Amino acid sequence: MENADTTRSFVKDVKRVVVKVGTAVVTRADGRLALGRLGALCEQIHELNSQGFEVILVTSGAVGVGKQRLRYRRLINSSFADLQKPQDELDGKACAAVGQNGLLALYDSLFSQLDTTSAQLLVTDNDFRDPQFRKQLSETVDYLLSLKVIPVFNENDSISSRRAPYEDSSGIFWDNDSLAALLALELKADLLVLLSDVDGLFTGPPSDPQSQLIHTYVKERHEGLITFGDKSRVGRGGMTAKVKAAVYAAYAGIPVVITSGFAVDNIVRVLHGERIGTLFHRDSNSWTSTGETSARDMAVAARECSRRLQAVSSQERSKILLDVADALEANAELIISENEVDVSATKEAGYENSLVPRLALNLGKISNLANSIRVLAKMEEPIGRILKKTELADRLILEKTSSPLGVLFIIFESRPDALVQIASLAIRSGNGLLLKGGKEAKRSNSILHKIITSAIPENVGERLIGLVTSRDEIPELLKLDDVIDLVIPRGSNKLVSQIKSSTKIPVLGHADGVCHVYVDKSADMDMAKRIVSDAKTDYPAACNAMETLLIHKDLLQTELVNELVLELETKGVSLYGGTRASELLNIPKTHSLHHEYSSLACTVEIVDDVHDAIQHIHQHGSGHTDCVVAEDHEVAEVFLRQVDSAAVFHNASTRFSDGFRFGLGAEVGISTSRIHARGPVGVEGLLTTRWIARGHGQIVDGDKGVIYTHKDIPSQE
Amino acid sequence: MENADTTRSFVKDVKRVVVKVGTAVVTRADGRLALGRLGALCEQIHELNSQGFEVILVTSGAVGVGKQRLRYRRLINSSFADLQKPQDELDGKACAAVGQNGLLALYDSLFSQLDTTSAQLLVTDNDFRDPQFRKQLSETVDYLLSLKVIPVFNENDSISSRRAPYEDSSGIFWDNDSLAALLALELKADLLVLLSDVDGLFTGPPSDPQSQLIHTYVKERHEGLITFGDKSRVGRGGMTAKVKAAVYAAYAGIPVVITSGFAVDNIVRVLHGERIGTLFHRDSNSWTSTGETSARDMAVAARECSRRLQAVSSQERSKILLDVADALEANAELIISENEVDVSATKEAGYENSLVPRLALNLGKISNLANSIRVLAKMEEPIGRILKKTELADRLILEKTSSPLGVLFIIFESRPDALVQIASLAIRSGNGLLLKGGKEAKRSNSILHKIITSAIPENVGERLIGLVTSRDEIPELLKLDDVIDLVIPRGSNKLVSQIKSSTKIPVLGHADGVCHVYVDKSADMDMAKRIVSDAKTDYPAACNAMETLLIHKDLLQTELVNELVLELETKGVSLYGGTRASELLNIPKTHSLHHEYSSLACTVEIVDDVHDAIQHIHQHGSGHTDCVVAEDHEVAEVFLRQVDSAAVFHNASTRFSDGFRFGLGAEVGISTSRIHARGPVGVEGLLTTRWIARGHGQIVDGDKGVIYTHKDIPSQE
Repeated sequence: MENADTTRSFVKDVKRVVVKVGTAVVTRADGRLALGRLGALCEQIHELNSQGFEVILVTSGAVGVGKQRLRYRRLINSSFADLQKPQDELDGKACAAVGQNGLLALYDSLFSQLDTTSAQLLVTDNDFRDPQFRKQLSETVDYLLSLKVIPVFNENDSISSRRAPYEDSSGIFWDNDSLAALLALELKADLLVLLSDVDGLFTGPPSDPQSQLIHTYVKERHEGLITFGDKSRVGRGGMTAKVKAAVYAAYAGIPVVITSGFAVDNIVRVLHGERIGTLFHRDSNSWTSTGETSARDMAVAARECSRRLQAVSSQERSKILLDVADALEANAELIISENEVDVSATKEAGYENSLVPRLALNLGKISNLANSIRVLAKMEEPIGRILKKTELADRLILEKTSSPLGVLFIIFESRPDALVQIASLAIRSGNGLLLKGGKEAKRSNSILHKIITSAIPENVGERLIGLVTSRDEIPELLKLDDVIDLVIPRGSNKLVSQIKSSTKIPVLGHADGVCHVYVDKSADMDMAKRIVSDAKTDYPAACNAMETLLIHKDLLQTELVNELVLELETKGVSLYGGTRASELLNIPKTHSLHHEYSSLACTVEIVDDVHDAIQHIHQHGSGHTDCVVAEDHEVAEVFLRQVDSAAVFHNASTRFSDGFRFGLGAEVGISTSRIHARGPVGVEGLLTTRWIARGHGQIVDGDKGVIYTHKDIPSQE
Repeated sequence: MENADTTRSFVKDVKRVVVKVGTAVVTRADGRLALGRLGALCEQIHELNSQGFEVILVTSGAVGVGKQRLRYRRLINSSFADLQKPQDELDGKACAAVGQNGLLALYDSLFSQLDTTSAQLLVTDNDFRDPQFRKQLSETVDYLLSLKVIPVFNENDSISSRRAPYEDSSGIFWDNDSLAALLALELKADLLVLLSDVDGLFTGPPSDPQSQLIHTYVKERHEGLITFGDKSRVGRGGMTAKVKAAVYAAYAGIPVVITSGFAVDNIVRVLHGERIGTLFHRDSNSWTSTGETSARDMAVAARECSRRLQAVSSQERSKILLDVADALEANAELIISENEVDVSATKEAGYENSLVPRLALNLGKISNLANSIRVLAKMEEPIGRILKKTELADRLILEKTSSPLGVLFIIFESRPDALVQIASLAIRSGNGLLLKGGKEAKRSNSILHKIITSAIPENVGERLIGLVTSRDEIPELLKLDDVIDLVIPRGSNKLVSQIKSSTKIPVLGHADGVCHVYVDKSADMDMAKRIVSDAKTDYPAACNAMETLLIHKDLLQTELVNELVLELETKGVSLYGGTRASELLNIPKTHSLHHEYSSLACTVEIVDDVHDAIQHIHQHGSGHTDCVVAEDHEVAEVFLRQVDSAAVFHNASTRFSDGFRFGLGAEVGISTSRIHARGPVGVEGLLTTRWIARGHGQIVDGDKGVIYTHKDIPSQE
């Protein structure tokens, strides 16, 4: 399947690019030149030029510049009497003649600040009728580009006598947009960039929040459907002219991107293959995914299917899971052969060895997965459970029931079995699902997704579970806070932080796990050693591993501190001290008390007592999991009650903080957020509630309609 | 109390402003000029100039420009042999001489594009020793400014012989930052703006996410505490030099703002009084609130107090509530007299009459409030309730317990009694609270806040509940997603939407309530009339009022439809139809099927059956409250099960969707979000959970440490 990556992959081969700058880009609202944008444009062209691209500039704006200058000249040359008379419009051709001068002088002066030379080329439609001219033009431009000079084109408006569009078999030319398209063809460019005052082509007026940016224009789908909005403030162009020119060039074989000239780096981003603006490409109609379908449409389809999934009976939902389990086993060989392609590609790419075991699937793993799905199929129905039942008034009964969240978007790395687990959790909890896996498991994820969705019956719809195939689509999906209800990133802290900072959709996860173990003076010495050692060394990279060891100051008088330090050092743990510990224990000082080592290293600090320990944890912790080791039960209860973290333990290793160990079954993730789900999250975290009331015609009528009883009714569960 | 408004109010009187542009602003990473930023700078100066401001520019960057040019000249004049030798550094003074030329020519050419003229003024420290020079300089600048010419200053580096800073009683001058400060004094400017490559002065290195932008520098608080980070990439300046110059100018009476020169409109924004960058002001130490204290500090203090509130016993928390109730009654007269000031101000301001009853407090209202607080005081302790108890392994017991969310930020309009209700809910649920009320209730809110916080004992701290006094602080607070856990806007849909779109903190609320009543063909005719009428007319402005009436198509054959229409029209309800209803019932067509009238008006549409009704609700509803009127129980159950809204009713008015009517006690709000709390939200919605485990030294040890039992233990509640 072609995916959104493909839609911009052609930029790899781009060397020669025509950039058209519209009047709305070079001109400010007051009609003067937009110097900031012009400067940024020249900086970008200079940068691309020095990177080896051949950039040809087509610029508008001369008429506007000339109008400014001529108005001023007329003012100076007017008598007072002249100024009393109505001022007629300035002649457009004269404005162009005056402005061309000023605009090109400015480009020259800007480029020369960057040690770059520009050249002026003024053309009219008539010129193109002469084959000799076209040959000469090509040769001149080739020569300029070979010297790294920037050719700057403009229609020679001041002497043009065109009244109707110029058109022949080789091209069409009626304004600077079409001139740019024509030049892209004539000069054999690899890409045409049209800079506009909006981000690209939208499904409706760009100012309407309902309008969506079209990433890839597909003529068959978009032609006629799109409102182009108003013509731009100034200039002849507007979006209609741009789309016409873009379609023309694209179908002649030159990809076109319409993007905003207001951003300071859009040309560079387009040439780096970023999916900004609207792409016009000859082959776009043959691309099965152009980004559009795979973002909003995918999410909307998943929600619709999830509603149908909720509507079917509990037995039917169980049946789907059993069918999925069977299908996985029946297709085990196919899965393994696709998985092997991923595994060998990963080995060839020379990735770290630890990746391969996480990536590789075998018959045993597949059968385990199938069996765990069968367990899930037999689990008590989680949807529609009555959590609370109240009689509001005589014969008016209110129930609070569990219900699916809606649509989940899960981003996971490496392990293809995660796809199977998450998909079955989603089916069990009645949610729609969008999945984005790591590219190293591309083939495995693709076949697993296909097998699972094939097992979903038609009355629910296989689009219940969508597979997102391109990284580029993630930012798009993260914007869809109206159709996606929860994002669950499973991967590095960096991934989680990035996602949290780039979406308004609630994110289930934790950016960091700075877990503490506090050893009280009342601690059992052997127990303290055992717990501290397990908490740090059982799996140092886990988020529930201990990162900071807090020790009661009185223990400095005993042997325990030395024994603890020795225990950790023997297991290869490097120790870094807080201010007190580094001095008293003679260990290097830590750079930060809020640090997740994720390796055989930890921070040690001395505290005065349990209150000081709690203070330390509140100030430097991450609210994940913290533990007190103490025989004094009063101390333990103070700690358990006051430490404000998702999980707080007494005399047990922090490593128990985990969905499986907590008995939640499959784990979706661990949340350090305080809203919705906190700590290890299982199926429950994928559910929300609905209030359902059954009455017999009761009305409120200013609260005189019924007599409120508000009686709790025990639910029969 | 002075508030954040005051800190930037001085800009009203600013006419003459000195703008200093640092080397890091005018220069790109590759050492060439940053043309985009320079262009934007000139555009801003032109804009301010035409708005009547007198702008004086002090620019760096000449040395960098000269270095470029001289390198090129040297290359051209070198023999191949010369180039083989190591290249010595270019002479700084020569670079300045060459660069000054190019830089000022560029300014001139940019300004002239905007019909603005600039003038060059090169000065050295020696010049300032001559009083005659200083007088002449003032006169020249005054004259230039009177002609709207932009004076552009630079240190005359190429001929300067200074080795140590120049300093006398009138000023100090050792670089362009201090030159700018000196000129601001000499030329009697009203404001100095120092443009940097960072957003202002931070509490730590700007690249460190922990660092906070300081909005207002207070010497007593910030001096010595601040890490300035690295010196800027290029140029002599860096932040230390800027702060020194800024402190110097500020204490001489000229306010200074350090802000980023990378944004295209920061100078304009500073002059419009926006709170961007760091302000240095002579009086800042006397300002009680400089924005810093009232945002982050308030939130942090509320969190600390909330932790102490959680630590006290349940009885103590009840006692606080009883004390608050007593204090309110004891101070009733004071409250009423302050409230009367608000009420008469509101009447004078000619607000709509409906506002006054909501605003006004009297003895009866106060006594009701006190009594409802006493009810809350007696309510079952909501914190620390065991929601689930599991034996994980022998003698390792896990509990899921309720715990406070942390810090709530509530924005409410008009009604001062809301402050009392919310504050007591927060105390009951152990949460810290920040309150922002409407300005029409300013005096009332202030006295109520004072009375309530006075009743909070010292071991908890009165900063548990903070009162936000300025609108300006709202955006600041909405950014603090690390210290505020939940935002609850209580007010118009517009307020809720605005807040939702401007924060990453979870928001409890609903932007709109498009509630439906579906009347099935099996409906009891009288019941349908009663419910529809109550749902629309009991309180048309409420969010749970019916906005759309859906009618089964078969009822068109009966009298019911006409009777329903007549019933509504008799009560003064205007009807607008969907496509089918407008034609069949001959009523005007509605503009949108997703419309909240909030008045005596509603949409009517005909649907085929219950499935069609559900489809309509999913497509056009807002997920708030929807109702089915039907005697056919199968139809009712399909509706109750499939309609995916926060509340779904059978044969009862949508108006029942309310915290009080649901028996939740006080209502915090109604949530249409699917995460955390859904539908009417009471105390429960202000709580989250914590996992607490009590063990006897158990460790994980690769899951061989214990034998998992995962037994549910019934909690003794």
